Amino acid sequence: MTDLLTATIANIQPLDDDAMRAAHARQDQLTKPPGALGRLEALSIQIAGITRNVCPRFKQPAIITMAGDHGIARQGVSAYPSEVTPQMVLNFLRGGAAINVLARHVGARVIVVDMGVASDLPTHLELVNRKIAKGTRDFSIGPAMTRDEARRAVEAGIEIVTREIERGADIIGTGDMGIGNTTPSSAIVAAITQRAVAEVTGRGTGVDDAGLARKIATIERALALNQPNPNDALDVLSKVGGFEVGGLAGVMIGAAARRVPVVIDGFISGAAALIAYGLAPSVQPYLIAAHRSVEIGHRTMLEHLRLVPLFDLDMRLGEGTGAALGISICIAACKILDEMATFGEAGVAGKSE
Amino acid sequence: MTDLLTATIANIQPLDDDAMRAAHARQDQLTKPPGALGRLEALSIQIAGITRNVCPRFKQPAIITMAGDHGIARQGVSAYPSEVTPQMVLNFLRGGAAINVLARHVGARVIVVDMGVASDLPTHLELVNRKIAKGTRDFSIGPAMTRDEARRAVEAGIEIVTREIERGADIIGTGDMGIGNTTPSSAIVAAITQRAVAEVTGRGTGVDDAGLARKIATIERALALNQPNPNDALDVLSKVGGFEVGGLAGVMIGAAARRVPVVIDGFISGAAALIAYGLAPSVQPYLIAAHRSVEIGHRTMLEHLRLVPLFDLDMRLGEGTGAALGISICIAACKILDEMATFGEAGVAGKSE
Repeated sequence: MTDLLTATIANIQPLDDDAMRAAHARQDQLTKPPGALGRLEALSIQIAGITRNVCPRFKQPAIITMAGDHGIARQGVSAYPSEVTPQMVLNFLRGGAAINVLARHVGARVIVVDMGVASDLPTHLELVNRKIAKGTRDFSIGPAMTRDEARRAVEAGIEIVTREIERGADIIGTGDMGIGNTTPSSAIVAAITQRAVAEVTGRGTGVDDAGLARKIATIERALALNQPNPNDALDVLSKVGGFEVGGLAGVMIGAAARRVPVVIDGFISGAAALIAYGLAPSVQPYLIAAHRSVEIGHRTMLEHLRLVPLFDLDMRLGEGTGAALGISICIAACKILDEMATFGEAGVAGKSE
Repeated sequence: MTDLLTATIANIQPLDDDAMRAAHARQDQLTKPPGALGRLEALSIQIAGITRNVCPRFKQPAIITMAGDHGIARQGVSAYPSEVTPQMVLNFLRGGAAINVLARHVGARVIVVDMGVASDLPTHLELVNRKIAKGTRDFSIGPAMTRDEARRAVEAGIEIVTREIERGADIIGTGDMGIGNTTPSSAIVAAITQRAVAEVTGRGTGVDDAGLARKIATIERALALNQPNPNDALDVLSKVGGFEVGGLAGVMIGAAARRVPVVIDGFISGAAALIAYGLAPSVQPYLIAAHRSVEIGHRTMLEHLRLVPLFDLDMRLGEGTGAALGISICIAACKILDEMATFGEAGVAGKSE
């Protein structure tokens, strides 16, 4: 019997060349100089290839924001206490967080998922409970989770995104919440790209110099102890990852298998993309990097993934805030393809000979 | 008797420090690490200072797209024939151009203005007729317009934006249409910043190598012939400018005098901003640069204006397309200030000691 992860990966197809060619041809007939809308044009062509639709329209953008806690937070690697993770989940459910504001601004729903918050969260209609465990274990003294937990986290992400797509979601953004989660994300990028930890580790929510030094030393020790195999993404996830990171990797794989574009947020979503890409390189063309995060390791992630972010507004919040703005740009790009008049329709002369 | 331009400039006040301080303090109480939303936070604080409102809300974004023709186009400096200017104006009025699509996407109205199209345009409810003349004169053989025409173009922009603000417009974007208008824009940036013409002249809608060489040589000759005075912006506008460029400079000055933020588009709007800034340096804090255009001289303009664009998507279309997306980012930034919960309201713990 094939497991869900393997079966889903097997369903990921290449982008549709015919749709991309047709979208490109249409861009060149629209009333503007060819190429004058720059990356909006390329983006619309990519999304045509993803969706197999020459004029993709989006009715239900959805941002999946996954929360989890991190045993490693005990090592003093974050500027905030772990109790902020569940407090922020409640803030998401009440609509008061940055992701709620920006999702409303761009017309997206937010789906909040408990992938592994350390405390019990109240039952709430809008909260999806897929808690793998009450936080990861402290990976400075052993693996963050078992290999089975890592797989279950990824498969939960696949199931959640599949259900949302079946309910109508047609473009997905990713987001995260988890105090301490820039530490596993830095560990993942260091493990997979084999770059020095200091080169890919930043201040997260804002640790001071001493905190940054402690964070780097902690990750270095953890990698030496756990020896994650860079060629085995589930091994990396289980040794130094997080439940929300695994869940988001599953979201990306599940969306790609359904030909739905995935707009990835910043550093933690980038770590999830590294895991997804390690599990299934075929996921890459389905990913759209929203922005470049302030967090220094993000640049290394994007290079490894061969993704160029759409914008850089010095953001470093996570939650899906960058993805929300990115979704709006994707929709704008597709509306160009769908709604603009052609030279013929508008009676506008083309280029001089 | 004081003229409209002088009176309007006299009404431009500095940004409101109290509103900016209050907006900054509020940003630091919102449920996110201080500064984690990067430029969105700075932008919201700037707009608070512009509008004198700690939580600015926008109900009526408006993009003012001004069209004009250029005698210099006869010199073969554009890839498109001049007849495209009125054809595109009609396309704007029918809603089929890129600016219509992107303005609808961000919830903005488009106000189309004939500042000096060479042909007669049909009367249309949605077309504002402020035609100064039927196109500028060919500035390779003499001034583009008289000093009086230059002043009338700027004052028309002031009157148009003032009327729109009185009707409820609360954030303004600028846009342009005019075959050949990257040529006056390059001439303006060269004249005002005293940079070499070749350093600030690009391919516009897409001239080939021979066309680019001709364009550079034409501008060099025109500057030598007309000798615009870099310290007299009306002189620069009259010698090598365009009617839509002057009109947009007036839009910026008029909006600043009414404390309304102005999101400027790409290269032609940048040339207008140079004229506005030359006439009234006090306009600068009211300007928000939407994007960095592909057109090479745009970088020099932005440096001169001390503006950092919000994004760079390799766009070079004009019409206000960059401004439309920029307006959406400004509104998002202000919604953060207005709609997010504070730590106290949400019961979220602050930074660890």
